Amino acid sequence: MGSIGASKVSLSSISSEELWQRSGRANNAELLRLNDRRESGFLLSPTHEEEITAVAAGAIKSYKELPLRLYQISRKYRDERRPRQGLLRAKEFLMKDLYTFDYTPEMALETYSDVRGAYAAFFNELRVPYMVAEADSGAMGGNLSHEYHFLSLKGEDNVCACNYCSYVANEELAEKRHKPAQAQQTNIPHTTWIGISKDNTTLIRVYYPQPQRSSADLEDPSAPGPSLNDLNIHVLKRIYPDLNTAIDDPATALRIWDSNVHAKTDPRQSVDIFDYRIAQNSLSVKEGPDIPDTDPSGLSTSSPHLDPAQHGVSAGHAAPTRQAFDLTKISTGDGCPRCSTGTLTVHKAIEVGHTFHLGTRYSQPLNAVVAVPPEVDAAGQVAMQMGCHGIGLSRMIGAVAAALADSKGLNWPKVIAPFEVAVLPGKGNEGDAVGVYEELRGRGLEASVEVGQEARLRHAAAVGKEEVVLDDRDRPLGWKMKDADLVGYPVIVVLGRRWKGESVVEVQCRRLGIKKDVKVEALNGVVGELLAQL
Amino acid sequence: MGSIGASKVSLSSISSEELWQRSGRANNAELLRLNDRRESGFLLSPTHEEEITAVAAGAIKSYKELPLRLYQISRKYRDERRPRQGLLRAKEFLMKDLYTFDYTPEMALETYSDVRGAYAAFFNELRVPYMVAEADSGAMGGNLSHEYHFLSLKGEDNVCACNYCSYVANEELAEKRHKPAQAQQTNIPHTTWIGISKDNTTLIRVYYPQPQRSSADLEDPSAPGPSLNDLNIHVLKRIYPDLNTAIDDPATALRIWDSNVHAKTDPRQSVDIFDYRIAQNSLSVKEGPDIPDTDPSGLSTSSPHLDPAQHGVSAGHAAPTRQAFDLTKISTGDGCPRCSTGTLTVHKAIEVGHTFHLGTRYSQPLNAVVAVPPEVDAAGQVAMQMGCHGIGLSRMIGAVAAALADSKGLNWPKVIAPFEVAVLPGKGNEGDAVGVYEELRGRGLEASVEVGQEARLRHAAAVGKEEVVLDDRDRPLGWKMKDADLVGYPVIVVLGRRWKGESVVEVQCRRLGIKKDVKVEALNGVVGELLAQL
Repeated sequence: MGSIGASKVSLSSISSEELWQRSGRANNAELLRLNDRRESGFLLSPTHEEEITAVAAGAIKSYKELPLRLYQISRKYRDERRPRQGLLRAKEFLMKDLYTFDYTPEMALETYSDVRGAYAAFFNELRVPYMVAEADSGAMGGNLSHEYHFLSLKGEDNVCACNYCSYVANEELAEKRHKPAQAQQTNIPHTTWIGISKDNTTLIRVYYPQPQRSSADLEDPSAPGPSLNDLNIHVLKRIYPDLNTAIDDPATALRIWDSNVHAKTDPRQSVDIFDYRIAQNSLSVKEGPDIPDTDPSGLSTSSPHLDPAQHGVSAGHAAPTRQAFDLTKISTGDGCPRCSTGTLTVHKAIEVGHTFHLGTRYSQPLNAVVAVPPEVDAAGQVAMQMGCHGIGLSRMIGAVAAALADSKGLNWPKVIAPFEVAVLPGKGNEGDAVGVYEELRGRGLEASVEVGQEARLRHAAAVGKEEVVLDDRDRPLGWKMKDADLVGYPVIVVLGRRWKGESVVEVQCRRLGIKKDVKVEALNGVVGELLAQL
Repeated sequence: MGSIGASKVSLSSISSEELWQRSGRANNAELLRLNDRRESGFLLSPTHEEEITAVAAGAIKSYKELPLRLYQISRKYRDERRPRQGLLRAKEFLMKDLYTFDYTPEMALETYSDVRGAYAAFFNELRVPYMVAEADSGAMGGNLSHEYHFLSLKGEDNVCACNYCSYVANEELAEKRHKPAQAQQTNIPHTTWIGISKDNTTLIRVYYPQPQRSSADLEDPSAPGPSLNDLNIHVLKRIYPDLNTAIDDPATALRIWDSNVHAKTDPRQSVDIFDYRIAQNSLSVKEGPDIPDTDPSGLSTSSPHLDPAQHGVSAGHAAPTRQAFDLTKISTGDGCPRCSTGTLTVHKAIEVGHTFHLGTRYSQPLNAVVAVPPEVDAAGQVAMQMGCHGIGLSRMIGAVAAALADSKGLNWPKVIAPFEVAVLPGKGNEGDAVGVYEELRGRGLEASVEVGQEARLRHAAAVGKEEVVLDDRDRPLGWKMKDADLVGYPVIVVLGRRWKGESVVEVQCRRLGIKKDVKVEALNGVVGELLAQL
């Protein structure tokens, strides 16, 4: 954060509903509200766009005070529907959040690029493999965002990466290359899923290629019918945002739609959405076991929720406007949408960071404006251009643990390990171990002369860590070795059987698969080489 | 905290009602409860005795793992009845809290003494005048505690200090020396205040010396009658903890007592409490305009809430057991209760720290026990002996500001100032100022050689601060000087009119009342001498 000129601040965790009403996010289901003695409408901030924008609106009056970059490291609170996996998804978590303020979109995009550079430097220093995915801005607003992911089978996110070009996108945003036209059949076997809008007035029929099921399934009448599980829910929600994704069963959707009292007086509506491989003229609404024989007079020819011409959706029975939607899920092996060569791999991943260009999503409703010269804006003032950027610190600890742990214990990257090296003396070597410990501590100081002693010491102290720890507890060596593996020190130095007489220690580095005997004179060099790789 | 071997931990701010029920504190009116989607009974911890005791109960099994000292720096939450004065009393605040675990009371008292030593070192380093007062353990439990106070007219606490001996106590605990026996009159003019118990069943009559009021007041029938304001509420609450201090008006107390439906069937009760100067035999319950003519059969001869023999209170009309209670407020000039010479001064003060010896107040109900050798306890296990110790960090910032600010701005002690020295260049001296800034930064490094360069650098980096700041903003010198005064840098160095040609800077230190011209060669020495006093 220092490298991009950001200043550290500390905002209250308690925020007010009134502020969140102004930004339009007060109804978020994940807000934890407080019961205080005056029913003052307080809540615990899950993120701080509202608060920081209100602070900036009060403090910043002129473009001359910009750019401004403010960050904090603090706890956030979300009423998670399913808290789980310890630090990976908890109601209370630690986040580093950065907020940026500029006065033109161009400057804000430059800031965005600076932040991405700083985040890359941070994740590179961690030395844990990560991916940067193009992402959907979702509830945060804005129109440019990237996610930082660690690959992990414990992850709840799916990230699609091309094996040829640089395309990486999260599942919400990812697309796949359409099959060439000649491969398209007009009479491809298809099936229809039926859903309903959130307001229960509109039936949504989705026509998509018959999923490849086992032949047993095809003959089994109890086999699962059409389901949202067959479909790319993110594409569907982009086409029809008001789709109620909680109702999967077509029969239920039909029943609700049919019994909608309000809709009995108003015209009920329906919308047809076609996968690009389905030739619409091969279909009839009366065909197929799941297509309802509804009274055509009950169907409107348009839906209030979308403009068929823009969205390429057929509304009711009107002639459809076709667009090339691929409604099926992305899976490993699908073609990359950006290059003509690569195929996608879908990775399970844990999101640990996110950058958003917000534009005026918050500055506009919260009136965070600055005076600008007339050449910037004729009106003499503009809403600030904002960005917000977060790293989930407590989740990152869990994610690093998940990514690097093995059956013996944790494995910490050097930069976040509580100690870089652990010294474990066997019985009778306790006294000598103090000397080895001191020698290894000296290593840091000597090595640092090259990179600037002051800088290095400041760094070491700033992260609050000693470089080396001596396990001087009164326990057997075997116990200490197991414990050190469990804790996950990057490098372990054991004064064992070859110490007395030979002055040979064993150097262990589980992450690199190294275990070797080293003469004590060579120890600093060997440890330094190992640490440079961690 | 490092000096007493305490380890840093980080506990969740979200706690559960269930845990607080086990400790008996779930009904605290200052608990902020959360509305989550499952009504799980979560609350925000105002302090962490319950959480840390539960953690220790699960993790610590043997006396061999003790002593254990754990601290954290985190936000706390209290539903304050009257949040006010900014950082001094807020619903959300930052606290450093330390919890200690031992297995004998003797060891716990030694720990308590270690903590007091560390707190003294901390407050001494701040160089802001403070007092350590003997204190009441209050809601925290335990039986030994001390408060750390800054003197300030903005304070909400009253601390009584002897001008002769070392007696310092907070208002809740303070006593005063009784007047010598010969000075006591048996027929001293007295008055009676009447209150009621929290359960509305018991009338409490308090007989105390007539306050000295103006003669106008005495003749004015609308002048205030007997009131809790005349009395030492802390002494009263120690004598009769169930007193409802929210009801001050005797007539109201009488009406409630008289109309208490439940008490109409059960016998209603009354309790008489006498100041040591009132000869009880000079009184009759029928005397005085405020003494009710109640049916003696409605009065019990004892109260369930106290044992008259122990507390020296007369219950009902039974013969009283007299003890020497001084029921009147302590005020400046009263005699010190500990020495026979000094008099007390009552200071307005801000509490910024508190140490408590808790004993087994939390370990008992939460079952935090450890195995011990039979010579410690025949049963082979004991509840851990605990202590809790806090410093209100955000309040301290407000209190230091209140204590040291003057009409020009803040004044920060060196150890918490964001920068020790500010360099302010006048027009045309901007380039030269960089050299002065570098020279002053070098001062820290050179001076540190004496105390150990590594230690000093680590300290500087750990508190996250640079020693010197250069105000290179494009503003007039007068504006910069005002701004620097406002911010409150300990030392300000101005490159003004005598810079060009003479190489003379002006060194300012508002807190010490110093403003002098210094040749640049002498600057490091002068600045170092000033900082040593801040």
